[in-house]
Amino acid sequence: MIKITLPDNSVREFESGASSLDVAKSISEGLARNVLAAEVNGEVWDATRPLTADSNVKLLTWNDTDGKSTFWHSSAHLMAEALEALYPGVKLGIGPSIENGFYYDVDFGDHEFSSEELGNVEKKMKELAKQKNIYAREDISKADAVKYFEEKEDPYKLDLLEGLEDGQITFYKQGEFTDLCRGPHIPHTGFIKAIKLMSVAGAYWRGDEKNKMLTRIYGITFPKAKELTEYLERLEEAKKRDHRKVGQELDLFTFSQSVGQGLPLWLPKGTTLRERLEGFLRKAQKKAGYQQVVTPHIGAKDLYVTSGHYAKYGEDSFQPIHTPHEGEEYLLKPMNCPHHCEIYKARPRSYRDLPVRFAEFGTVYRYEQSGELHGLTRVRGFTQDDAHIFCRPDQVKEEFSKVIDLVLYIFGSLGFDDYTAQISLRDKEDRSKYIGNEADWDRAEKDIEEVANEKGLNTVVEYGEAAFYGPKLDFMVRDALGRSWQLGTIQVDYQLPQRFKLEYKDSDNSMKQPVMIHRAPFGSMERFIAILIEHTGGNFPLWLAPEQFTVLPVSDKYNDYAYGVMSKLEEAGFTGTVDARAEKIGRKIRDAEVQKTPYMLIVGEKEMDGNAVSVRKKGEGDIGTMPVDEFVELFKKETTV
Amino acid sequence: MIKITLPDNSVREFESGASSLDVAKSISEGLARNVLAAEVNGEVWDATRPLTADSNVKLLTWNDTDGKSTFWHSSAHLMAEALEALYPGVKLGIGPSIENGFYYDVDFGDHEFSSEELGNVEKKMKELAKQKNIYAREDISKADAVKYFEEKEDPYKLDLLEGLEDGQITFYKQGEFTDLCRGPHIPHTGFIKAIKLMSVAGAYWRGDEKNKMLTRIYGITFPKAKELTEYLERLEEAKKRDHRKVGQELDLFTFSQSVGQGLPLWLPKGTTLRERLEGFLRKAQKKAGYQQVVTPHIGAKDLYVTSGHYAKYGEDSFQPIHTPHEGEEYLLKPMNCPHHCEIYKARPRSYRDLPVRFAEFGTVYRYEQSGELHGLTRVRGFTQDDAHIFCRPDQVKEEFSKVIDLVLYIFGSLGFDDYTAQISLRDKEDRSKYIGNEADWDRAEKDIEEVANEKGLNTVVEYGEAAFYGPKLDFMVRDALGRSWQLGTIQVDYQLPQRFKLEYKDSDNSMKQPVMIHRAPFGSMERFIAILIEHTGGNFPLWLAPEQFTVLPVSDKYNDYAYGVMSKLEEAGFTGTVDARAEKIGRKIRDAEVQKTPYMLIVGEKEMDGNAVSVRKKGEGDIGTMPVDEFVELFKKETTV
Repeated sequence: MIKITLPDNSVREFESGASSLDVAKSISEGLARNVLAAEVNGEVWDATRPLTADSNVKLLTWNDTDGKSTFWHSSAHLMAEALEALYPGVKLGIGPSIENGFYYDVDFGDHEFSSEELGNVEKKMKELAKQKNIYAREDISKADAVKYFEEKEDPYKLDLLEGLEDGQITFYKQGEFTDLCRGPHIPHTGFIKAIKLMSVAGAYWRGDEKNKMLTRIYGITFPKAKELTEYLERLEEAKKRDHRKVGQELDLFTFSQSVGQGLPLWLPKGTTLRERLEGFLRKAQKKAGYQQVVTPHIGAKDLYVTSGHYAKYGEDSFQPIHTPHEGEEYLLKPMNCPHHCEIYKARPRSYRDLPVRFAEFGTVYRYEQSGELHGLTRVRGFTQDDAHIFCRPDQVKEEFSKVIDLVLYIFGSLGFDDYTAQISLRDKEDRSKYIGNEADWDRAEKDIEEVANEKGLNTVVEYGEAAFYGPKLDFMVRDALGRSWQLGTIQVDYQLPQRFKLEYKDSDNSMKQPVMIHRAPFGSMERFIAILIEHTGGNFPLWLAPEQFTVLPVSDKYNDYAYGVMSKLEEAGFTGTVDARAEKIGRKIRDAEVQKTPYMLIVGEKEMDGNAVSVRKKGEGDIGTMPVDEFVELFKKETTV
Repeated sequence: MIKITLPDNSVREFESGASSLDVAKSISEGLARNVLAAEVNGEVWDATRPLTADSNVKLLTWNDTDGKSTFWHSSAHLMAEALEALYPGVKLGIGPSIENGFYYDVDFGDHEFSSEELGNVEKKMKELAKQKNIYAREDISKADAVKYFEEKEDPYKLDLLEGLEDGQITFYKQGEFTDLCRGPHIPHTGFIKAIKLMSVAGAYWRGDEKNKMLTRIYGITFPKAKELTEYLERLEEAKKRDHRKVGQELDLFTFSQSVGQGLPLWLPKGTTLRERLEGFLRKAQKKAGYQQVVTPHIGAKDLYVTSGHYAKYGEDSFQPIHTPHEGEEYLLKPMNCPHHCEIYKARPRSYRDLPVRFAEFGTVYRYEQSGELHGLTRVRGFTQDDAHIFCRPDQVKEEFSKVIDLVLYIFGSLGFDDYTAQISLRDKEDRSKYIGNEADWDRAEKDIEEVANEKGLNTVVEYGEAAFYGPKLDFMVRDALGRSWQLGTIQVDYQLPQRFKLEYKDSDNSMKQPVMIHRAPFGSMERFIAILIEHTGGNFPLWLAPEQFTVLPVSDKYNDYAYGVMSKLEEAGFTGTVDARAEKIGRKIRDAEVQKTPYMLIVGEKEMDGNAVSVRKKGEGDIGTMPVDEFVELFKKETTV
């Protein structure tokens, strides 16, 4: 008999050779039907693999990341089986699971596989799935494995086998298909109920362009048909909301190859949006005792040698800027912290002066390979909503707490309500890799955990994930499409104060070293705006919308009146335009809808006579005619954040 | 007889050989007493030099720049005479007039001249001045000149003589002193009534460090004692107002050698000042139809090759930034215009869309030799209050006019009321050096002149001073110390639209090229703030002051109340602090005075009971006790720009 310990610490006894599936069945048949794999002593196994010693077992279902990836890995095998059936002699490269689904790299020989054929492969996969073929694991000697793939004339698997050691090799078989594979896999193909092959791309064998280009087929599968439908809908919605598309439609930003890739140019409307966001944060920060500073976008190379950034990023970033005379070297600033340390040092500080909180919308530049660039989420120049708090060790908790308040206030105001706080602490086993003294770390870690608990945050603690210079807390925020983004980082730092020899005079007149807290609620204005665009689909809250209203005169007879209405609204602090084109009112309304303008104000004879506007509100339609003054009041009420 | 034409076009007849001084005497004895030199047919001559042909003559007095420089050049000769008398055997280098006064480079041989000796030299100069020695011009052959200085054993004058041609050489003599000199000079030393030798420095002969280091003595002189007194007072005041000194006292900005020379770091209070200025301009620009944009601080090198900036500045500026891979080259942006051209190109433009006006507080970087750097007025990175107007040729006049309105509104709001507009047009003789078509230039030049006249600006027209790409208008602004600064440039440009192939679709559907207007009322935020600091001595107008009030509790019993007052004022939009130190109230008041805080609000028992503040206003002193709300109203009224 062996003892199986479950995650709730309950222990059950089984005969040696029982599988995790047997464990599941002992709990409930319903559970057993959903078990995809199991984590056995920290390793993911087939649910059907025999357990032969006392073990900790965690049953994995579709709700577990490892359950999903096992499911998709097995789906890749199913696709390979279908391909072998439909294209005899096809050679197979690798077929892993990925973030959403799986792929397989395939050598079709002379056949040029096209995306039109995907439907046929899908059909075959469904047919094979219904057979409920078991994924069978088999240990095999290297010699036998080589022999198998030599007979099959598969150069890719033979290439893979070269790197493997005898005694460590396993095959997995289902139906007519055998693959060289470490596993694990789901019990049988019948679990795979919904299948969609997404696209076809080219990929060099082993990612090396000297090798042959294989055909990569991407697919995704689900245990329920409904889940596939929902996934495809989300995908469709994500495409519609792609910030690159919406950014162009709403005239927010652009890129120019002449200026350089990954360097956004903010168009007037995008600039307004950006400035509103900055203004909002600026106001909140002022209230929270931050002081704005402005620093240059370059710094002497030695500054970054001191900070350690050069050693870490120098070689792989934008190269130093030389002066034509005097032999100086500068770097484009990759971070604002060294500059803020120099501001701290600009005058002597006393324990009474602390904390000081320097904030800057600081634009930094970091080289990314052109292939890595993506809209506003991955750029070469971006503006951090950066701030550095310099405080005494005994102030870390209170400052950390205040930063969390600020971050949550900001997320709340922008409609991000679904978040988790990830607390990253030191490695429990090895404390040697961190700098700063033990007592300060203990205190800071305790402070962070206590603050997070006091605030009732939904937290995940990750040991070993702290930066070498201090513990941190990151907010993982879920957007309207269910995607998770890391925003709002707060980091405690003992490193830079030491490297920059920062100090303050303590109450006993001794010189002490302050602690630094780095924080950026948005992270990068560019990336945050990209996320905000996709979260809202470009339907920004009224107070943020770059164009809050459009006045639509029904004919050019009312253009003057329309401009008068606009002036009145602009005087009240709102931003909008008049659509004075010689177009029909229907066309004007449709165009304003495309621009996602929150309020359309239609004006004609009746409105002009009554010093009024007919109001169409986005999402609600016609909300009636009202005097301009009344509309201003409505507007004011709605834009109070 | 010869005909002498005066600047008012009146013509007088004189016998050949009469001097400009005779011309002056024929007008009035009073004028003759003030004539220092004369411009004869465009060349500055001794007033005593005989006129032997019909000539245009302009009499030069102390009020003319050329009159002043002649006066100072003659004063350098007077100093040389005094030095020869006091230090026999002294050798003389060169002795020109400069912006304020003159200097002479002197070789004292073994004697180490110190600034303590200046008083003695001054005394001797005054003595010699009283002798009213005539400055006598003498044509001399090169051989005789060489002989003279060989006998005098003066290597410097001999060195200078080597570069001169026979027949072109003149000596000037006054009293016992003879100098190799082209002139011109004032009639006699008696004009020099007030003398001050300012300082001593070292200077290599001919500025070449391989040569001997000479002693440079700086001095200044005036025709009236009172003018010297005023000059020294202004100098003293300028020292007090030096923006580098005030900037440090008021905690506005700092420099760090670790960040790099010429790269200002804006401290919190300086940032507030800067942001208030930006906000003020931003608001005015929004009203005037400008749209803010944001562009990166770097651009591909080719962008500046296209714009022509690379050819002009590339070699002598910050060198290109290389990427670690992909072989790209970027430049720190020296100008914002190319980026704004790319924004213009981001979408098709129609004649109906124009003008568009893109504004950006764009930080640019330009290399300056470290010796040229000076506080905020000469830096390596600065933020331009830049904007570019893209308009049709027929809109240039109106746009130019609107820009002038904006600039004058801004100057007026900041207390700069004394300015001249310099209009720079093409060279009348040679139009080949300008690009763009003749008709557009004619029109733009006419437009600018007409607009300037319509606005009643005090203008100076300079032919040949236009940029090669278009005519321009610069405002020369006089500060509180009477110094002149070039601010507020407005430039018309046909060049960049052509180089960037900008276009718009005209009403006849043909593609046309827009005209660009570059304009920057402040020019550079850094330089402008330096000027503003020196203009106001740090006593900024209330609406601009970074710290508008300080609440001074008379003891710590009233600290809480003081913070309450501060919150109330901050809610009303004002910025200030509480001086909660355990200092006596007298000390607190003195410190607030040093900080030039516009309002001190003293609070104690009586104020707390009455929910009031005792108000001390800068420059006025105690203005009484009033309820906090009343003070808020007063404040609001005073900060409405």
